Amino acid sequence: MNVKQEVYRLKEDSPILASSGIEKRNQALRFIAELIREHSGEIFAENEKDLKAAKENHISSAVMKRLKFDEGKLEASIKGIEQLILLLDPLNRTKLNRQLDEGLVLKQVTCPIGVIGVIFEARPDALIQISSLCLKSGNCAVLKGGKETVHTNRILFQFIREGVIKAGLPQNCVLQVEQHNEIDELLECDDCVDLLIPRGSNAFVQYIMNHTRIPVMGHADGICHIYVDKEADFDEAIRIIVDAKTQYTAACNAVETILVHEDIADEFLPKLSEELKKNHVEIKGTRAVTGRIGGEPVEREDFKEYLELIVSVDVVDSIDAAIRHINTYGSHHTDAIVSKDLGAAEYFMNLVDSAGVYHNCSTRFADGFRYGFGAEVGISTGKIHARGPVGLDGLVTYKYKLFGSGQTVDEYASGQKQFHFMDQ
Amino acid sequence: MNVKQEVYRLKEDSPILASSGIEKRNQALRFIAELIREHSGEIFAENEKDLKAAKENHISSAVMKRLKFDEGKLEASIKGIEQLILLLDPLNRTKLNRQLDEGLVLKQVTCPIGVIGVIFEARPDALIQISSLCLKSGNCAVLKGGKETVHTNRILFQFIREGVIKAGLPQNCVLQVEQHNEIDELLECDDCVDLLIPRGSNAFVQYIMNHTRIPVMGHADGICHIYVDKEADFDEAIRIIVDAKTQYTAACNAVETILVHEDIADEFLPKLSEELKKNHVEIKGTRAVTGRIGGEPVEREDFKEYLELIVSVDVVDSIDAAIRHINTYGSHHTDAIVSKDLGAAEYFMNLVDSAGVYHNCSTRFADGFRYGFGAEVGISTGKIHARGPVGLDGLVTYKYKLFGSGQTVDEYASGQKQFHFMDQ
Repeated sequence: MNVKQEVYRLKEDSPILASSGIEKRNQALRFIAELIREHSGEIFAENEKDLKAAKENHISSAVMKRLKFDEGKLEASIKGIEQLILLLDPLNRTKLNRQLDEGLVLKQVTCPIGVIGVIFEARPDALIQISSLCLKSGNCAVLKGGKETVHTNRILFQFIREGVIKAGLPQNCVLQVEQHNEIDELLECDDCVDLLIPRGSNAFVQYIMNHTRIPVMGHADGICHIYVDKEADFDEAIRIIVDAKTQYTAACNAVETILVHEDIADEFLPKLSEELKKNHVEIKGTRAVTGRIGGEPVEREDFKEYLELIVSVDVVDSIDAAIRHINTYGSHHTDAIVSKDLGAAEYFMNLVDSAGVYHNCSTRFADGFRYGFGAEVGISTGKIHARGPVGLDGLVTYKYKLFGSGQTVDEYASGQKQFHFMDQ
Repeated sequence: MNVKQEVYRLKEDSPILASSGIEKRNQALRFIAELIREHSGEIFAENEKDLKAAKENHISSAVMKRLKFDEGKLEASIKGIEQLILLLDPLNRTKLNRQLDEGLVLKQVTCPIGVIGVIFEARPDALIQISSLCLKSGNCAVLKGGKETVHTNRILFQFIREGVIKAGLPQNCVLQVEQHNEIDELLECDDCVDLLIPRGSNAFVQYIMNHTRIPVMGHADGICHIYVDKEADFDEAIRIIVDAKTQYTAACNAVETILVHEDIADEFLPKLSEELKKNHVEIKGTRAVTGRIGGEPVEREDFKEYLELIVSVDVVDSIDAAIRHINTYGSHHTDAIVSKDLGAAEYFMNLVDSAGVYHNCSTRFADGFRYGFGAEVGISTGKIHARGPVGLDGLVTYKYKLFGSGQTVDEYASGQKQFHFMDQ
């Protein structure tokens, strides 16, 4: 397959999808849900092939769990599509309606980004979710899933394409890329792909960011912090830390670093240490920490994203030191303060430069579903365009429509006419 | 100067500027306006040095005009600052206020992008405008102006910095970079600069885009089109074309290509040709054009951005062909249709994939001032983050603030608690 040539077809058809009505886009989603349900037996059979190959390749049981596409995941996927259908159309929203002068009206109207390339992990339900989000938002999608789910993806994609065509949307609005080497071809498509969304390991996302001129939306790292203020409720702090570290360690929103205010360190650290031990979490503390609870000290510069039952801990002498640490060593993902002092919380939330700044709750809440976005296409740690969990809103841009009646700029530049701005 | 080290100081201070109140930011703007007015004599004297050097270097008179900073430009700059002060604070706007569950409230709040690097042409008034926009929006600014205005920029920057400090904003929120080789150092600052805005020639903007990992906002090209529909009013079409081509040929929103519907080509082209000749505009037409009005034909693939009194002309057999041409050969900047047929206009405006899609008016209206944004930092042909003329709104992003009362994700994942989304 010549990836660039195929992607060009999407680019050519993207204005047609962009200007399609919401009824058609929702209809496509409905057809996709129906087709997947009708053909569930065939889909499960294809998934068995992937599972068999995975077993032969000694894939870990954690990954196997993700590969498996069963009745439960099918129903969850369909429910996801149904919820997406209920969401308001993100397109054609007038964000600005301004008369510049008589007979000269400017409108800022939301529209799709165009062609979006999504490279995602080996999870069949991710394919369904991502393509649904792109269709709902009027974006053409180039989809590259993990190679371990090639059979499942192929049959799922077939039904997605069938649903699209049945609804009367351009058939070239979705494209599946299967070969790993085709990713590099996709990265070269900076004249026909408007946005890339890589999902997966940090190393992978970083690789994508470094090897393309296409704008990339993703998270480079997920080094989330919890700062335990001197006014913290100890039990609350420990409950939140245990949840943020252990509820799902592989997530980018799991906490990796705990900063404890010096005034409470003597009392708090032993309690925290005890509770973390109970939950099988290893502490990597600086000298200020090991001096209080024992163990081999590590340097602050060695703190990192573990994605395991390990947590870095340090002591800070002020809230400002905590903020400075987070802004310097963090990844601008999600960082929390635990404190009964509302002023301190407000200060922390204003000065920490992250996509999510939390007060008295777990960093694990950073998620499109938990934010009520219906679904998410990923989490962005960039500050441009979309930040944090990205739902439908992050998949649209806007254009300016100017409705005139023969106006020239010279009339205004010469002073013959004046602008009279009036927002409607 | 070690650029990276200096920029790091801005990054460190950026949260302080970000959380400063609008009164302080406006006060800084007021001080800057005062200082510039008070010291106008000194500023004009420095400007004389730049003008003298430019004369010695045989700089063109067009560029000399831009370099010159006189009473008129000073007053216009001050008026620009005063208008900016009147604009609403773009920060701390709550875009979403959603209760996720009892005692768990999510707010999406606007905030500055952080540290913005602006590389701009040799125009002293641009320095004032850009730094004012950055300050108003709470962004730290690294400013690199054209070398031809080094003396003027240096003294202006001195007063900008003085105004900033006098208002109590962090002194490290503005930085001037003077040496051309320091641009390359700036491009390396992807860990401390959040956004780059290059202004100037396309080649220059392209160079910046190709040599940095920092997100870049700018226009790669300005190949604007006017499509003259079969239902066009000929006089109106010609008036608009003449304005869009001749009112200011060096602008990126000047028209470069005219597409004429076949049905009217025989009648319209001779009239257009005559009028363009009167305005000293040379036509580069395809065979379909030269067959009707004479001249040497060119190929459609050779159409380009002239920024001169030259215009490409082609004949298309349908509105779809016009749209396809624009989406293929255009630069997604600003494209217009001239037609009395409202349906055709709507169709064109929906399907043309450009930042600005215009009906019956000149492409030259694509400008932050004409859109009523008060000022503009540039025009973006990218689709990510900001599109078209970029004012204050394009200089902000948002963060999610989550206010909890001890919530953990496990409570929700286990089914013990449920989300109850309720927008306020």
